[in-house]
Amino acid sequence: MMQRPPAEPGMDESEIDTPAAIIDLDLMEANMDRMAAFCRKAKVRLRPHAKTHKSPVIAHWQIARGAIGQCVQKPAEAEALAWGGVRDILVSNEVVTPRKLARLAALAKMAEISLCADNEGAVAAIERVAEAAGMRMRVLVEIDVMGVRCGVLPGAQAVALARRIAASRHLVFGGLQSYQGVAQHLREEEQRRDAVAQAARNTAETVDALRAVGLSCDIVGGAGTGSFAHEAASGVYNELQAGSYVFMDADYARNRPGPDFAQSLFVLSTVMSAPRDGTAVLDCGHKGVAVDSGLPLVFGRPEIEYIGASDEHGTLALRSEAAGSLTVGETVRLVPGHCDPTVDRYDWYVGMRGRRVECVFPVAGRGMMQ
Amino acid sequence: MMQRPPAEPGMDESEIDTPAAIIDLDLMEANMDRMAAFCRKAKVRLRPHAKTHKSPVIAHWQIARGAIGQCVQKPAEAEALAWGGVRDILVSNEVVTPRKLARLAALAKMAEISLCADNEGAVAAIERVAEAAGMRMRVLVEIDVMGVRCGVLPGAQAVALARRIAASRHLVFGGLQSYQGVAQHLREEEQRRDAVAQAARNTAETVDALRAVGLSCDIVGGAGTGSFAHEAASGVYNELQAGSYVFMDADYARNRPGPDFAQSLFVLSTVMSAPRDGTAVLDCGHKGVAVDSGLPLVFGRPEIEYIGASDEHGTLALRSEAAGSLTVGETVRLVPGHCDPTVDRYDWYVGMRGRRVECVFPVAGRGMMQ
Repeated sequence: MMQRPPAEPGMDESEIDTPAAIIDLDLMEANMDRMAAFCRKAKVRLRPHAKTHKSPVIAHWQIARGAIGQCVQKPAEAEALAWGGVRDILVSNEVVTPRKLARLAALAKMAEISLCADNEGAVAAIERVAEAAGMRMRVLVEIDVMGVRCGVLPGAQAVALARRIAASRHLVFGGLQSYQGVAQHLREEEQRRDAVAQAARNTAETVDALRAVGLSCDIVGGAGTGSFAHEAASGVYNELQAGSYVFMDADYARNRPGPDFAQSLFVLSTVMSAPRDGTAVLDCGHKGVAVDSGLPLVFGRPEIEYIGASDEHGTLALRSEAAGSLTVGETVRLVPGHCDPTVDRYDWYVGMRGRRVECVFPVAGRGMMQ
Repeated sequence: MMQRPPAEPGMDESEIDTPAAIIDLDLMEANMDRMAAFCRKAKVRLRPHAKTHKSPVIAHWQIARGAIGQCVQKPAEAEALAWGGVRDILVSNEVVTPRKLARLAALAKMAEISLCADNEGAVAAIERVAEAAGMRMRVLVEIDVMGVRCGVLPGAQAVALARRIAASRHLVFGGLQSYQGVAQHLREEEQRRDAVAQAARNTAETVDALRAVGLSCDIVGGAGTGSFAHEAASGVYNELQAGSYVFMDADYARNRPGPDFAQSLFVLSTVMSAPRDGTAVLDCGHKGVAVDSGLPLVFGRPEIEYIGASDEHGTLALRSEAAGSLTVGETVRLVPGHCDPTVDRYDWYVGMRGRRVECVFPVAGRGMMQ
């Protein structure tokens, strides 16, 4: 069962059923324009990460502004986009089981599909599926430039794996996946710059070592909303994979300076109880707003603090100097600590122009973890 | 779009697509039998909380063992159960908006529906909807016995609100909702006992004060998996609302002593990378297993620790003395830190007998936050 649509076009914000994921379309469009302009000027391709928005509708808005395609993390997310007409999709992640690989091979009949590998066994599994499907699949080597997750070591290990891919009749070597995820959330500009510089050096050395054995990298991809200007400036990366810039979140806003994008995604929530002076309880707890990167903020109401999330309740504290108070039935906009997993709780986006609902469309990739 | 079913009946566990929510049916049935036997012996009614399982299928299994109905937190959860044939549903939470109340009134044509209120404005809103629907709606007064969330104060405030409900031609006073949620997760038995004793005293005084004005409480409801024996022993509560006992989780298992139920829900996850000795990366991060109550455990593999969750990646550390290692493509069962929000990430349950898939059925209340 899907959630019922929480609104219809033409409604006022006060009529939206809550909790609901609402987008300020003006601000989201400005974010997309700003990133597109940056990439044009920096002469680097933009392949935004759809793990943030999970929507072919938003993907097409990005592509209309010059993005060359989309990134996803999972085959089921790739399906949600390809079935929505997106033509070029990179699974920026390892896929290792025959069942998932067969789905990607089937999807490659309707879109350009690339994926990543970081070990010989995975390459062999992809090769078997590609051979069975009678096609060549495009595989990038993921290199580990942050030392904490997937990826082979930059340099000789990466070259060996790339040669294995390039030597296969059923595979195409597509380049390098090089994502420095830790750098995104380092708070100081110099920390982020230095972390990306190290990743870029490792990546450049690997690109050079590949060139020395006759392998060129169509894609050298990475970067995120917290650091993309550094990857672009490095001259090594030719595709930026930032995703969060489209919506922003409270955690990225804690970077100094924060990324130059506006918060455009909110969770609309209703006060369902105001049991004591200085306290109110919302109808949105951590089932409705992800708390893995901190509690949400209350948009435009600095006198109110969201101090606790249980499953279906959010507890607010009103600072004593507050001009007003919160009344039962009133709504507030929450700024999620982290948009990607927050969006994953919703089946529908409500697109707003100011306080008016302009459109309601599905989060087609919601829950697509497989 | 729903997730595709990750398995079919008859499959072996190794054939299940991951991540997937799997239930050990033998252990879940034993948990349900044990709780049913406890309630029969304690002469207290059982109204399990469906916020844990979100499934009319599991609700009916509980009801077949003697449960009188179900609790939910949201009108959309009530719909998922009533549309699946559950006949008696208590929304153990405040519902304040006309749109949601109208849905509950409609639902009351096909099932017995009760809900809670903690303020006069909410009672008036319920009354208006009941009058418009030409029916009487059953309303409980929620009292705040833990001082942190919804609820009027026990005693005079609660009595005033109950009298307001009982005086309405469109409402029926249904009793008291008295949930001591904090007590559930206090680690020591004496702490939980003392916290519940305080809540029970406040509740008993309110029941007495209501009786003094001629109002009797059909339902005096509360309790959870961490404390239900104390509520049952108090003689005040006549309905227990425990939910997690059916699945258990890693957090409840940290209570001393832990509740006498077995872990029956797991997230099945696949190793998608093993980049370095002593490390492996799973295809399940915090989008697939809730981390609000701590990271998951790896079931039956004490030599492996789940040390980090990003959106779609779970990082494992193998202790050096580990007999074996983890290989790409291998699956593990994760014990969620908290089952309720973990289940909320999945559209399907996979019911297992040992390692064989017996049934696949929907998490009908998944995402039903409205």
